[in-house]
Amino acid sequence: MTEEAEQLGEALAAAVANGEREQLRTLIEGLHPADLTTALDGHEPEVAWRTLAELSADDRAEAFGYLDPERQIELAQHLDRRQLAHVFRYMPADERVDLFQRLSPEQQDELLPSLAQAERDDIRRLASHEEGTAGAIMTSEYATLAPELTATESIERLRREAPDKETIYQAYVVDAQRRLLGTVSLRDLIVARGSTRVSELMTTEVIALPASAGRDEAATLISRYDLIALPIVDEQERLIGIVTYDDAMDVAEAEATEDFDRIGAVNTLDTSVRAADIQLLYRKRIVWLVILVFANALSGTGIAAFEETITAHVALVFFLPLLIASSGNAGAQAATLTVRALATGDVQLSDWGRMLARELCVALLLGITMAFAVSLLGFVRTGPEIALVAALTMVSVVVLGSLLGMSLPFVLERFRLDPATASAPLVTSLADICGVVIYFWIASRLLPAVA
Amino acid sequence: MTEEAEQLGEALAAAVANGEREQLRTLIEGLHPADLTTALDGHEPEVAWRTLAELSADDRAEAFGYLDPERQIELAQHLDRRQLAHVFRYMPADERVDLFQRLSPEQQDELLPSLAQAERDDIRRLASHEEGTAGAIMTSEYATLAPELTATESIERLRREAPDKETIYQAYVVDAQRRLLGTVSLRDLIVARGSTRVSELMTTEVIALPASAGRDEAATLISRYDLIALPIVDEQERLIGIVTYDDAMDVAEAEATEDFDRIGAVNTLDTSVRAADIQLLYRKRIVWLVILVFANALSGTGIAAFEETITAHVALVFFLPLLIASSGNAGAQAATLTVRALATGDVQLSDWGRMLARELCVALLLGITMAFAVSLLGFVRTGPEIALVAALTMVSVVVLGSLLGMSLPFVLERFRLDPATASAPLVTSLADICGVVIYFWIASRLLPAVA
Repeated sequence: MTEEAEQLGEALAAAVANGEREQLRTLIEGLHPADLTTALDGHEPEVAWRTLAELSADDRAEAFGYLDPERQIELAQHLDRRQLAHVFRYMPADERVDLFQRLSPEQQDELLPSLAQAERDDIRRLASHEEGTAGAIMTSEYATLAPELTATESIERLRREAPDKETIYQAYVVDAQRRLLGTVSLRDLIVARGSTRVSELMTTEVIALPASAGRDEAATLISRYDLIALPIVDEQERLIGIVTYDDAMDVAEAEATEDFDRIGAVNTLDTSVRAADIQLLYRKRIVWLVILVFANALSGTGIAAFEETITAHVALVFFLPLLIASSGNAGAQAATLTVRALATGDVQLSDWGRMLARELCVALLLGITMAFAVSLLGFVRTGPEIALVAALTMVSVVVLGSLLGMSLPFVLERFRLDPATASAPLVTSLADICGVVIYFWIASRLLPAVA
Repeated sequence: MTEEAEQLGEALAAAVANGEREQLRTLIEGLHPADLTTALDGHEPEVAWRTLAELSADDRAEAFGYLDPERQIELAQHLDRRQLAHVFRYMPADERVDLFQRLSPEQQDELLPSLAQAERDDIRRLASHEEGTAGAIMTSEYATLAPELTATESIERLRREAPDKETIYQAYVVDAQRRLLGTVSLRDLIVARGSTRVSELMTTEVIALPASAGRDEAATLISRYDLIALPIVDEQERLIGIVTYDDAMDVAEAEATEDFDRIGAVNTLDTSVRAADIQLLYRKRIVWLVILVFANALSGTGIAAFEETITAHVALVFFLPLLIASSGNAGAQAATLTVRALATGDVQLSDWGRMLARELCVALLLGITMAFAVSLLGFVRTGPEIALVAALTMVSVVVLGSLLGMSLPFVLERFRLDPATASAPLVTSLADICGVVIYFWIASRLLPAVA
């Protein structure tokens, strides 16, 4: 939080504490709802609600939508049924259903009778889609047009419906069964002669997605085709919702964070890092760490097999961390490039063979360069024999690590697992184990049994 | 590339080779420019240009904008001056200037006389902004309105200007000096009574950014406030451009990829991974790897100091990879969470102290859990003394790695370097060196000098 936001938050809390509604109103005048909610972060629900209560119903609902999910729940528990129903009425359909699903069953049951029939039905419909799908992030507040309307009639219709729609810049042309015939932009409607029919103006090559598709797919399509909104259809090709570009941006950010967390071997937090408590952070981090302890224990077993060689040449140990790290680093590089290329669709499963051949060449070049660096170090510190062992090992482990790092994301994608799970730590652990064995095996072949 | 796109590409190439223009036109009919350019990927410039030549001037310019930068240059070199000028004329201003800047000085000089004066001036103005700034990604094709216009007059004006503007959904209200007075959305204009003045409709609390601000800041603001476009101003608060939401999405994706690459210790590729050749991949990866070789060599020096202890207790080496990896993994987790929280603005520099205290508690818990795991392994394999040393080391290195991983991004941010540079490999190397020294130091204190 910036200092500015922190000061505003304190001023708001003071105004609430002293019951200065006039002061409260002056403070929030002209403020963007997003900034207001940031300032209220960390303050009592009472302060937050008293402040929000001074906003218009529309602004209040918008501000509510900017709150963290946990914060929304906290505030919702603070409100009585009537107040909550009022906020619900003004929230966008997609944010409303998200909040509804996070309420306790008791709160849901208590709230439902206070809502209008249409709102209840809408919530039920939207809530039926699985989390992570396009259906779960879509909104039902889209504008539809009939193909026989003229441009003038269409604009008039969009004008009337604007207050209840998430966007009127893109309208969806449907038949009597709500099957999607095409899309038309407000821009095209405005530019066209007033008597032109929608059927002549609409684009019939519609980019749409079934509700069961992944939300990341929705975000990718919106970004790829520069859409303002993406229509979502059911199995009968009937329009049931839209995903807007701003939600797609949020999804893209959330997915990038998830991928990051996987690379860092953290289970994704549902809350902000700032707000997470010690217990939550511990839980999200310990699982992977303990798994990796046992994975890495295997490399200990590998080392134990070469106890004699190590005893004879303790200097071998000097290079152990370096060689292990190099293999892991090269593997992490390859994994990073591959995971990202698969995520952005730059590379497909069928490209594996070609990528593997190229990676082999690159890794050989990298390994040879690094072998040169390590043998320089080796000559200075331990003499030519061990330098040679270290250099040979370097080439082997860099190639091995790179090929592993490049291939693992493909394998995971092939089995429909998230390629980002081929996180650096996993690749590193695998490469470590092989690297240790390769190192001491080469040493046991090339060095005399007794120093 | 999908199989579909590949097949289309081959069909297009065949049609060009056989001079079947009719067939070519059938193939591209109704195709989205983004899909067309994907299909042309990897085909000869001749094929690409012949195909694009069949499109309308607008569609051709749009398709051109979807090409990779390298591909644009390749194609531009294939065109004569007149053809290139024609493509330029129809390209959006922001994409046009990007392409212009990538042309060789000779091509630039050759092209300029073929462009209209206004286009030349526009290119010169847009080209003056440094790469990575908001100014470098803005477009000059925005719609402005005078405050005294009525809603009806404004809509009529936007209607006339629509073909030359990147968006008409957001219009910018400026005075005679082009100072930004407010913004008004087409939605508000349409919903308002026709005689309402723009000055009454506009939002005066405008979110804007100077041209010198970072492009990532522009993307963050657009995402945070759900904007369709963000106005960009000069030092005198005069409007000089806008950044649209679709460009912000591209920036967000590019920045996420950059952060990924840093975590994977790869210098970011300017081209797609798919298209990169061996030499380029080698260059982008070798620098970090060699730096890390020398950084890790320090841990070898650390080990050398404890040669006697190792000779007396070779079993200590069994746990070396495991302990090093655990410290690195815990550090990578902490770094990942912190880098991401700083990138999304969730955490500020001033939060360091609080974050550090919390990280200490979390890391202690993690370390104790992992120490328990490693001492189990130790008992089975090497007996209680070494198990005790390994367990004590585990707690120390996990705490150390975590604190390093959490702090390094803050330090980098403080010195205005990119926190993502506190990549896992860097944190890991630092933690490795300290971990090795701690391990053998504890061993040399607790274990007898001779086994």
